[in-house]
Amino acid sequence: MANSRFEYVREFEQPDNLLRNTWVVVRVDGRAFTKMCARYEFQKPNDRRALDVMNSAAKAVVADLPDIIIAYGVSDEYSFVLHKSCNLFERRASKLISTIVSTFTANYINCWPNSFPDTPLSFPLPTFDGRAVCYPAVQNLRDYMSWRQADCHINNLYNTAFWSLVQLGGLDNKEAEKTLAGTLAADKNEILFSRFKINYNNEPDIFRKGSVVFRDYELVDPASHRTANTIDELAEPVQQSKTQNENDKKRRSKARIVVEHLDIIRDDFWERRPWILSNKPGKIPKEI
Amino acid sequence: MANSRFEYVREFEQPDNLLRNTWVVVRVDGRAFTKMCARYEFQKPNDRRALDVMNSAAKAVVADLPDIIIAYGVSDEYSFVLHKSCNLFERRASKLISTIVSTFTANYINCWPNSFPDTPLSFPLPTFDGRAVCYPAVQNLRDYMSWRQADCHINNLYNTAFWSLVQLGGLDNKEAEKTLAGTLAADKNEILFSRFKINYNNEPDIFRKGSVVFRDYELVDPASHRTANTIDELAEPVQQSKTQNENDKKRRSKARIVVEHLDIIRDDFWERRPWILSNKPGKIPKEI
Amino acid sequence: MANSRFEYVREFEQPDNLLRNTWVVVRVDGRAFTKMCARYEFQKPNDRRALDVMNSAAKAVVADLPDIIIAYGVSDEYSFVLHKSCNLFERRASKLISTIVSTFTANYINCWPNSFPDTPLSFPLPTFDGRAVCYPAVQNLRDYMSWRQADCHINNLYNTAFWSLVQLGGLDNKEAEKTLAGTLAADKNEILFSRFKINYNNEPDIFRKGSVVFRDYELVDPASHRTANTIDELAEPVQQSKTQNENDKKRRSKARIVVEHLDIIRDDFWERRPWILSNKPGKIPKEI
Amino acid sequence: MANSRFEYVREFEQPDNLLRNTWVVVRVDGRAFTKMCARYEFQKPNDRRALDVMNSAAKAVVADLPDIIIAYGVSDEYSFVLHKSCNLFERRASKLISTIVSTFTANYINCWPNSFPDTPLSFPLPTFDGRAVCYPAVQNLRDYMSWRQADCHINNLYNTAFWSLVQLGGLDNKEAEKTLAGTLAADKNEILFSRFKINYNNEPDIFRKGSVVFRDYELVDPASHRTANTIDELAEPVQQSKTQNENDKKRRSKARIVVEHLDIIRDDFWERRPWILSNKPGKIPKEI
Repeated sequence: MANSRFEYVREFEQPDNLLRNTWVVVRVDGRAFTKMCARYEFQKPNDRRALDVMNSAAKAVVADLPDIIIAYGVSDEYSFVLHKSCNLFERRASKLISTIVSTFTANYINCWPNSFPDTPLSFPLPTFDGRAVCYPAVQNLRDYMSWRQADCHINNLYNTAFWSLVQLGGLDNKEAEKTLAGTLAADKNEILFSRFKINYNNEPDIFRKGSVVFRDYELVDPASHRTANTIDELAEPVQQSKTQNENDKKRRSKARIVVEHLDIIRDDFWERRPWILSNKPGKIPKEI
Repeated sequence: MANSRFEYVREFEQPDNLLRNTWVVVRVDGRAFTKMCARYEFQKPNDRRALDVMNSAAKAVVADLPDIIIAYGVSDEYSFVLHKSCNLFERRASKLISTIVSTFTANYINCWPNSFPDTPLSFPLPTFDGRAVCYPAVQNLRDYMSWRQADCHINNLYNTAFWSLVQLGGLDNKEAEKTLAGTLAADKNEILFSRFKINYNNEPDIFRKGSVVFRDYELVDPASHRTANTIDELAEPVQQSKTQNENDKKRRSKARIVVEHLDIIRDDFWERRPWILSNKPGKIPKEI
Repeated sequence: MANSRFEYVREFEQPDNLLRNTWVVVRVDGRAFTKMCARYEFQKPNDRRALDVMNSAAKAVVADLPDIIIAYGVSDEYSFVLHKSCNLFERRASKLISTIVSTFTANYINCWPNSFPDTPLSFPLPTFDGRAVCYPAVQNLRDYMSWRQADCHINNLYNTAFWSLVQLGGLDNKEAEKTLAGTLAADKNEILFSRFKINYNNEPDIFRKGSVVFRDYELVDPASHRTANTIDELAEPVQQSKTQNENDKKRRSKARIVVEHLDIIRDDFWERRPWILSNKPGKIPKEI
Repeated sequence: MANSRFEYVREFEQPDNLLRNTWVVVRVDGRAFTKMCARYEFQKPNDRRALDVMNSAAKAVVADLPDIIIAYGVSDEYSFVLHKSCNLFERRASKLISTIVSTFTANYINCWPNSFPDTPLSFPLPTFDGRAVCYPAVQNLRDYMSWRQADCHINNLYNTAFWSLVQLGGLDNKEAEKTLAGTLAADKNEILFSRFKINYNNEPDIFRKGSVVFRDYELVDPASHRTANTIDELAEPVQQSKTQNENDKKRRSKARIVVEHLDIIRDDFWERRPWILSNKPGKIPKEI
């Protein structure tokens, strides 16, 4: 059959390859999650079960796509970072975004019953959108990650204070909002402590710091290796022998993918885990 | 907290809005579906249960996004068409693609057990990628749809012949491939008929023509309305009164979303359903 | 020499091809022309010599690039329209923009002395920037052209009134501005006529309507041919024989490129010159 | 007048801002310069007068746009580098490309008579196209520059040998081509020396190395400052006081713009001129 007559339509496709040698962040965001929260009666200010579904889905994405070096999640969003040397799908934005969003969604739906065994999903199902942003310098990438974690902190402190005023203090939403209007972080800490004996710093790390997903290797003494920033100098992926590549792949697949709740704003996190930015697998920790 | 120090990273986001007044096709493709077919033992050349999952997922996407005027699916792919006047998400490619892919994936995972009650999904879960293409003229869009349906026909005729040779004729894969090498459509029809008494035209429409999803209204006499092509003349969406918009919305939401297996290459399909290209809801058919 | 070591840098080039089957407008704008006006003492509100330089440069661009079907200029800007079937430079935006801007600039500099024989150019030389916009429908393109010509009218009426108040009425700039603040077109016409006996409609067409550059053929009776809008239906350039292409090329090269000052908002202009939108050369007028 | 009816066409403009914090190279290329060479009888293999026009035009561009930190030219092409912190025109590709191409073209046409006093330009005038490429790392940028200079060397060695064989050796073009087919650099050097007593290394630097244009300050001892690569670490332009900015601007405008013919592949060039990559003006050399 004369398919050729129609095939010209392929030429309307426009390339969308992301600039090489830049860090690619694909951020996945829940669609209409305010409604979701209401429908499934998520606990306020944080629902541990809902976060567990997010974290499981994120772990599955990282496991599925070895080019992802780290992911950071908070609330209904998750950011996945592809190494600047990554050439997956020739860096086509639509392929990268859709693959990550699809894998995230599939796993979210699939593991929902683990966290909510008595609440089956109803229509419309939870879904996510995604976008990709390129960061040329390590510092830009680190600032992106810091931005998300700082945001997590700001929102969580506010929400914790707000819901304490409502749930423990008996205020209605408007009164709580008014009480917090114009307050600084210190004020909110003070409200929590003086009124409710809540020491914000004792709140669970998962709420205060969000969740970081990465392949885990033995921690490294920061003094022993090149600092993260020298990674910027690399113009192109280091050429390795085939054997070396195979070894890297094997080590990477052996690494445990962990979900932790750590400070990723300070240097310490990155300096003790040089493998994240170098994309050079570290030493697999001995089993205890 | 000084979040502002990091917030500059937002300025690295680059807009990706699709050109206005063009038809947007978002095509969703199964990732690694050859492996899927093997793992879940899909029937050859077509697995009706697997197609049902695809079609259910597509119906859910069309129901969720009223801007989609029609969708066409075959095998592990589905194309969703947004009307040229659509301004959803300001036509940002990444939002449109990711939302459609995510909704499709969520529903695929969710309705899998309906078709495969005894075969739970295993890891890695089925996922999909997506891309968006803009078509300026109605004819370009129709040619895109024709391209996919012609492709469906070509592949299905080949696959039907191939698997008949293997399953009924006792050939191995290589022999079947060799038998079909260089044959034309007529030859394949002849092989099917003379060797296996299979009249290809009697094969189920869903296999030969794929699946078309759209909102259904009363069919129209082609002579009674402007032809589809005059739609090209419209520079911008027709300005309507608020009441008119509300009416359209109500009618659209009342329309039944159907999955049919029709010829979309010939004019007849489009001329009898002018609402698809005009995006002007038709008359709701009376219940029988 | 091992050039290959560096050649990887080519892969950082990102494609910028404009969507096929759309009308491409490349608009060229004078940079810092307010300073130019002052330095070369352009007459107010319009300097005929300066417009002549613009028009000569535009004619040279149209002569140089047969893919340009029409150009429209006013003040220090010129819009060049490429036919929707044009595939010059594979429609790469940067190539199209830079080529048109460069050709325009070269000719502007080169023919300056014809209009300003006693005023040599000084540094910094006059320069232009450019941008490209795609329009999917004929109506969009016509509306673009109408937008520029309506703008010409609005600005010229204002400027004519303003400079009459200053040059003939003895007002200073602030007073003139104040006099015109909030006035409608009719008010400005009235001011011109009652105070200065100027009938705006008798002002030169080149000032009131701007300049249109196109290849000239014999005018056509609008009733005798398909209307412009049916051009939208064409999905792809009509396939012609080689001989036919050669004939078109020959006729196009024989056509006179004219600069006229006509109304391009109304249909009449387009209907009597169907060759502009069809890109099918008309009949060369007989020499008189 | 109701201009608003048409103004919607502005919404078809699509943004083309280049990724922040990357080095932008705008390369300008002569259009159809092979014909130019023939028409104006440029000398082979290099025409010093033609190169002088190119270099004058490039100097004018660098003078006009202080955001350009360096330019490199060879034959009929010139590459202009904008600092990664540059935010000129909000980094819109079309504005940057068209402005540089227009300024280059204007000056090329304008200073042509200085080099070719007896050969006025004829139609079509010399013109240039342009493109922009982003480089994230200093090393990528340096490799781009090295690529162009290596290319210059390769081509010039070949052309010098080729034209010696033709002009001095009496071969025709085909014979010369055949003689050089498959030869390495050493072979070409040998041919030049043994047959024509030409020591390639004594050829003028402008032919062998091309031309580098930059603002000149006092050379610096490489040991005294941070190496170029540490510039990669900078995520964003360093925040300076207004006074500091004014001082920089003043010093930059005082700097002499030079055209030199140096090796820009080796580190030495860059290490002794740290101001190029840091964009921090150096010390103005004392007049002698």
